[in-house]
Amino acid sequence: MDREALKRAAAARAIEEIRDGMVVGLGSGSTAEIAVELLAARGPRIVGVPTSQRTAGLARSLGIALASLDDQPELDLVIDGADQVERGTLNLVKGLGGALLREKLVASAAHRMIVMVDDSKLVERLGGHTPLPVEIVAYGWRSTLRRLERAGLRPTLRRTAGDPFVTDGGNYIADCMLEVVGDAAGLERELSAIVGIIETGLFLGLASRVIVAGPHGVEIIEP
Amino acid sequence: MDREALKRAAAARAIEEIRDGMVVGLGSGSTAEIAVELLAARGPRIVGVPTSQRTAGLARSLGIALASLDDQPELDLVIDGADQVERGTLNLVKGLGGALLREKLVASAAHRMIVMVDDSKLVERLGGHTPLPVEIVAYGWRSTLRRLERAGLRPTLRRTAGDPFVTDGGNYIADCMLEVVGDAAGLERELSAIVGIIETGLFLGLASRVIVAGPHGVEIIEP
Repeated sequence: MDREALKRAAAARAIEEIRDGMVVGLGSGSTAEIAVELLAARGPRIVGVPTSQRTAGLARSLGIALASLDDQPELDLVIDGADQVERGTLNLVKGLGGALLREKLVASAAHRMIVMVDDSKLVERLGGHTPLPVEIVAYGWRSTLRRLERAGLRPTLRRTAGDPFVTDGGNYIADCMLEVVGDAAGLERELSAIVGIIETGLFLGLASRVIVAGPHGVEIIEP
Repeated sequence: MDREALKRAAAARAIEEIRDGMVVGLGSGSTAEIAVELLAARGPRIVGVPTSQRTAGLARSLGIALASLDDQPELDLVIDGADQVERGTLNLVKGLGGALLREKLVASAAHRMIVMVDDSKLVERLGGHTPLPVEIVAYGWRSTLRRLERAGLRPTLRRTAGDPFVTDGGNYIADCMLEVVGDAAGLERELSAIVGIIETGLFLGLASRVIVAGPHGVEIIEP
């Protein structure tokens, strides 16, 4: 069973939770895009709040009604993927796709967050081989990277074709290599205090349910 | 002695610390602008790093060489005003002028921060009648204001002529009324953890020296 099929299985299970009339946050990335396609095909009439310009474009092309987070400051639920899911806590690392800030804003405004992943994303501890993306203010980014270094991280400015990668919000991303994370809440507190950091890719206590698709079927994990 | 003359006295004392060849952060607001004018008139040859487009325009018009924080990620010192200075700690509230993010980025990159105020800004405890400005992500600002309310603050979106006030970085400002602040570090930690907040107007542990001009002369306070 290939990775694509696993993502599809997780997405199909997630959208079973969506009912007519709901306000639904639409995540970003490959699995979220599959979910948006399935949602459009199966047809519950929802209002979608997209977390990226890319997801907005896809949803619009499929006829899904859209609103911004300012029109709908409270959402029934959000469906989204993740780069890492910690099994015991359902804490997440997100942001490899570059949409972490809007994903976190939408998730923080939703009553429930349903995360869809293939089983390669499930880990015992966050960190390790996957970098932690951190959205930073573009202005003065070199100074901000120095502060991240002084905090013991190894940050690299994300670039595309040599130029800094720019988020939908006009900010930059620092990808931070770190050891396996023992105390995610402590790391989040430490990083949030650094001047120039807008949000980290740590999503702590936000996931209500994680749907994991593996070769032997779909597993549902709750906190 | 009027307020303007006090600001001028504080600014004049501050620029005595500036030597040829220094990289100097140039604050924003009325007192900082007086200092920039005095600096240009007295002539130490410096490189200025402005904290707002307005200060950049003024300094440029006066012939001061300018660089961005990305060209000069470490500064010798920064001179800036403040909305409140807590006498015992030299903790500050800043941001009524709307430039708090860049002011905080520049101050965090400087070896020393010299603050210039008239004596009406000196308080025993921060907070009270002066609101705390907080720079927030424009996207989803209504949800972010709800989170600030849930944290016990009374935020108001800053507007100009009905429209949201937009910072140089493209963000919004929430002005938060709060009681007198007993534990500034605790408040800063709590606010930094709220999704959608970029920076608060609390400047803790940044001021190296505060120059206070009052009717009986200039007082210099150090931590």
